[in-house]
Amino acid sequence: MKTLGYAAFDTTSPLAPYAFERRELRGNDVAMEILYCGVCHSDLHTARNDWGWSYYPIVPGHEIVGRVIEVGPDVTRYRLGDHVAVGCMVDSCMECDQCHKGEEQLCREGNTGTYAGADRITGEHTHGGYSKHLVVREEFCLRMPEGLDLARAAPLLCAGITTWSPLRTWNVGPGSRVGVIGLGGLGHMAVKLAVGLGAEVTVLSRSPDKQADALALGADRLLVSSDEAAMKQARSAFDLIIDTVPVKHALGPYLPLLDVDGTLVIVGQVGPMDEINSVPLLLGRRRVAGSPIGGIRETQEMLDFCAEKNILPDCEMIRMEEINHAYERMEKSDVRYRFVIDMASLPAQP
Amino acid sequence: MKTLGYAAFDTTSPLAPYAFERRELRGNDVAMEILYCGVCHSDLHTARNDWGWSYYPIVPGHEIVGRVIEVGPDVTRYRLGDHVAVGCMVDSCMECDQCHKGEEQLCREGNTGTYAGADRITGEHTHGGYSKHLVVREEFCLRMPEGLDLARAAPLLCAGITTWSPLRTWNVGPGSRVGVIGLGGLGHMAVKLAVGLGAEVTVLSRSPDKQADALALGADRLLVSSDEAAMKQARSAFDLIIDTVPVKHALGPYLPLLDVDGTLVIVGQVGPMDEINSVPLLLGRRRVAGSPIGGIRETQEMLDFCAEKNILPDCEMIRMEEINHAYERMEKSDVRYRFVIDMASLPAQP
Repeated sequence: MKTLGYAAFDTTSPLAPYAFERRELRGNDVAMEILYCGVCHSDLHTARNDWGWSYYPIVPGHEIVGRVIEVGPDVTRYRLGDHVAVGCMVDSCMECDQCHKGEEQLCREGNTGTYAGADRITGEHTHGGYSKHLVVREEFCLRMPEGLDLARAAPLLCAGITTWSPLRTWNVGPGSRVGVIGLGGLGHMAVKLAVGLGAEVTVLSRSPDKQADALALGADRLLVSSDEAAMKQARSAFDLIIDTVPVKHALGPYLPLLDVDGTLVIVGQVGPMDEINSVPLLLGRRRVAGSPIGGIRETQEMLDFCAEKNILPDCEMIRMEEINHAYERMEKSDVRYRFVIDMASLPAQP
Repeated sequence: MKTLGYAAFDTTSPLAPYAFERRELRGNDVAMEILYCGVCHSDLHTARNDWGWSYYPIVPGHEIVGRVIEVGPDVTRYRLGDHVAVGCMVDSCMECDQCHKGEEQLCREGNTGTYAGADRITGEHTHGGYSKHLVVREEFCLRMPEGLDLARAAPLLCAGITTWSPLRTWNVGPGSRVGVIGLGGLGHMAVKLAVGLGAEVTVLSRSPDKQADALALGADRLLVSSDEAAMKQARSAFDLIIDTVPVKHALGPYLPLLDVDGTLVIVGQVGPMDEINSVPLLLGRRRVAGSPIGGIRETQEMLDFCAEKNILPDCEMIRMEEINHAYERMEKSDVRYRFVIDMASLPAQP
């Protein structure tokens, strides 16, 4: 299937149009016309090969919402015209204990990335959602629930599930005291989802100017991390802190905020971490953890929850050709809170 | 009550005899003649003020086994002649949620150290078990179960409970895969206790020469951390790794050994940790935690378990005046696995 996308061609050039082929449908494949695609910081990291696993050209994008336009003969779950979605992975071994548990993101053989991955059958490079079409096996396709605004839902597929999964892993519910560090794409979803689950939610920020934003998102309060007295008063005040900051940063100020047995879970920063002191871990039996996206079943659960609770990301719609400008603004955190590409802006053929 | 001990008088001099007063018995106090006292690395850190909270003179020692020689009028649990024990703490607020849960080590107001602490009533410095006598409130006194060899049991009061507590917190039992890093006082107890709980236990060591020791302690195997092929093969092979290494060290090689949701728990190292990379945390939802000693109820549980299973530390008995030589040897890890002072070697009066 011929399609058009926007790809990075090397580590420095702007993204540019790229005509390429999607695979012919296998028996269990769904083909979709992509309607919307969110813009994740990982897209930019991959375009620039910050993590060392990119190839070129590469089409980023893993917050994908579309409409089914073709199905393979063995597909049972989806029909033409269904609204569907794809997140950060498009395949896994489906045979290991993690896959059997519905934790395909933790597949023993590694899941297959929506981009920067290799097809498990042909070995061909995968390409993401900055394009008109996608072909994916139905098991990695999500159903968009009725009533969820398609134009705004795309960021749920990465920013949503990446924050939902730790909220569920650590059993957040009514009465839970949740802190959120960083108020970007992931952080603002962490706030909305934790509030939706009934938790008491605090946004942690270095500057007090995030107060109005935090409250508007539904948080109970802002805790200014540069305010030493406030930080001291907040000691042992959190059961779970979700750390969405995507760059290396000090964890020291945050660890004493965890209550006994509390966990700070990293979902944003990838790589060497700033030095940690063991004393606050020892004194409160505190934990530092990581959490990677979420499983397919959990992603569907999150989508259904968002539809039921009317939870949606705050988005700024852009046209495909604005992607390079959007990257510049994203690097300056100049977005509230997620860019979404309206794929109608991309012609079907070059 | 007049008594004699061995104290550090400054950060560098050898420990030397010190005549001092134990407090007159309060209503709920027990006075004991100390029979044995284990020698913990923390004693040495405190003698040298490595952690900045020492005062001088200070009498170390928090692995204490003794015999009751006097009780206050309100004491209900102990009688003259009972064999009793005291560990790392001698008091806490007894009113907070943690104390009510039996987790006095995590007391909201901080527990009172057996040494390097301040009496909650008078504010006087506390002094530990390198002495002939101790006075302690009965709630912080443990009962030595029948049949437990008093001469060898002392290290259970710190090395034992510090490794028992995380084994219990993380629900170790039959089928659990436990790794132990470091084969000193704490490490050798971690092995014995985990084996006692029915776990499959692996000792992790930089050199293969610990093989015989590991197996003799009951471990199933030694994993040599400098053997890259073996380390690669052991990826995702542990539910819990207990890290007893008391100095700053790299955690990087160990994190990939944890299975999904596995925890590396630090019980030995106090202070800034070596840099951690978030990638193995993210990819396996792994965790790094700390765990401090254990509560009184949990300590009694551990003593009773050890009596039932006949689990005892491997000890080398020393006389009180050999303490400075023992410190020198401890610094070179030249002890299998714990020095215990036979307090009969110390005269009752100077």
